Amino acid sequence: MGDASFGSRLAAVFATRGHLCLGIDPHPYLLAEWGLPDSADGVLDFGLRAVEAAVDRVGIVKPQVAFFERHGSAGYAALEKVIARARGGGVLVIADAKRGDLGSSVEAYGQAWLSPGGALESDAMTVSAFQGVGSIARPIALARESGKGLFVLAATSNPEGESVQTARIRGGEHEGRSVAAEIVSEVVNANAADAAPLGSLGLVLGATVSAKQYGIDLESLLGPPATPVLAPGFGHQGAQFSDIRPLYGEVMANVIVSASRSVLKAGPQGIADAIARTAGELAECLA
Amino acid sequence: MGDASFGSRLAAVFATRGHLCLGIDPHPYLLAEWGLPDSADGVLDFGLRAVEAAVDRVGIVKPQVAFFERHGSAGYAALEKVIARARGGGVLVIADAKRGDLGSSVEAYGQAWLSPGGALESDAMTVSAFQGVGSIARPIALARESGKGLFVLAATSNPEGESVQTARIRGGEHEGRSVAAEIVSEVVNANAADAAPLGSLGLVLGATVSAKQYGIDLESLLGPPATPVLAPGFGHQGAQFSDIRPLYGEVMANVIVSASRSVLKAGPQGIADAIARTAGELAECLA
Repeated sequence: MGDASFGSRLAAVFATRGHLCLGIDPHPYLLAEWGLPDSADGVLDFGLRAVEAAVDRVGIVKPQVAFFERHGSAGYAALEKVIARARGGGVLVIADAKRGDLGSSVEAYGQAWLSPGGALESDAMTVSAFQGVGSIARPIALARESGKGLFVLAATSNPEGESVQTARIRGGEHEGRSVAAEIVSEVVNANAADAAPLGSLGLVLGATVSAKQYGIDLESLLGPPATPVLAPGFGHQGAQFSDIRPLYGEVMANVIVSASRSVLKAGPQGIADAIARTAGELAECLA
Repeated sequence: MGDASFGSRLAAVFATRGHLCLGIDPHPYLLAEWGLPDSADGVLDFGLRAVEAAVDRVGIVKPQVAFFERHGSAGYAALEKVIARARGGGVLVIADAKRGDLGSSVEAYGQAWLSPGGALESDAMTVSAFQGVGSIARPIALARESGKGLFVLAATSNPEGESVQTARIRGGEHEGRSVAAEIVSEVVNANAADAAPLGSLGLVLGATVSAKQYGIDLESLLGPPATPVLAPGFGHQGAQFSDIRPLYGEVMANVIVSASRSVLKAGPQGIADAIARTAGELAECLA
């Protein structure tokens, strides 16, 4: 209860440690490249080594839950250790879980990832609002009560997402608005109650898509309070750091820039240098 | 490889054991009513007792993953045992996970739940296509190769889902189609390659919403091959078995009718009778 809000902690990370977020994605092919088995032990070793390299070099990590879930309960036990090590090292953890459901089920997902003292306790998680932003009201409330954050998928970095995310709302006062814009608007409104300069509810806006084309008004994210943005799509998916300014404009000040495979491919020996180099390149582009 | 497709196995279940699916949802309040702790041990005990009662009375169970994930890796270990017991008892297991992501991440989710021999191996899982039906191409391929099934969220049973699911696709040859109708169409098309009378790719169409209002053409689900439907929303959420015929018409023959809280509230002593009674009521409405 005495803890700062997630938004406040994120703002402090931006100010002191920069905007880079290391994605912890133990793809089977990366495990092989790292000389690790495709097993729960392998993802544990991979995750811990990535976190060790990250702790002094970035302020945020984002484990991709799917690659741990792939190994069932043993993979989850590995993920618990990776998350705990990162948080113990003072790094914010965003669980990239993309969970979504209704009512008490989505509330249970929120509790799984955001409850203080829980085995999977993270600082924030990604959620999907296919069942409507109203469906995630309980995780939003839980995040607020617990000093945690949520990042709601709005415009994802994959091209196949366009048809759903640019579809137009029918009827009501938001007639004609895109699905992505509707989600943006609801998240911005939910942040409005927050007294901190940076809100605790964020949006996923991929760096490979145009906000304008998706009908999103980026200015609405400037606040106060400002709405943080989690931006995947750099490196392997094609976006460059030099795209950040044209893509996000002033919102750039509150963007979490996620890099995964482009850094992880450096292998266990090279990862620390790759993180430091990537963080330096990013800082230059944001200066 | 020699196994029948999921669609074939589901058709056999419909013919011999009926259409009722028991939702295994260990809500905290139900654990309390059952006299069980709100812990991994509690959800294990709850899940195993529900499965024991289900095995001779229904052909399908649907664990709600969120209530197990709530207890982290220990909750997942419990879920693995519950799934294995159900499958060992000859009951089809649909993991209600509502997973969604892109590329290799969503492929990893498919592998987690559908890989033969995997710790969480189920017969089918629910998935979300907020990132586009194209984003779930790999789990679709995996399901086909492994004799497994997928149920893609189209029109969910919660009222907050309407704005996203009835939004209109913009541009392209499907201009003006609803998001729900687009998903239905893509799933029906993906089933078309299937030689069995009942396809292995299904849709989630809640019993609390009108297919027509969501722009969905139910006739397209008749096939061949027919597209199975997972229908939540009965009991606690308000739909009645007598609504099935007006809601689904001829598609009724391929609807999985899910009931959770309305049965689970009978408690550990009453659940077997509650399942039998509910299955009987359903069979009468479908006759």
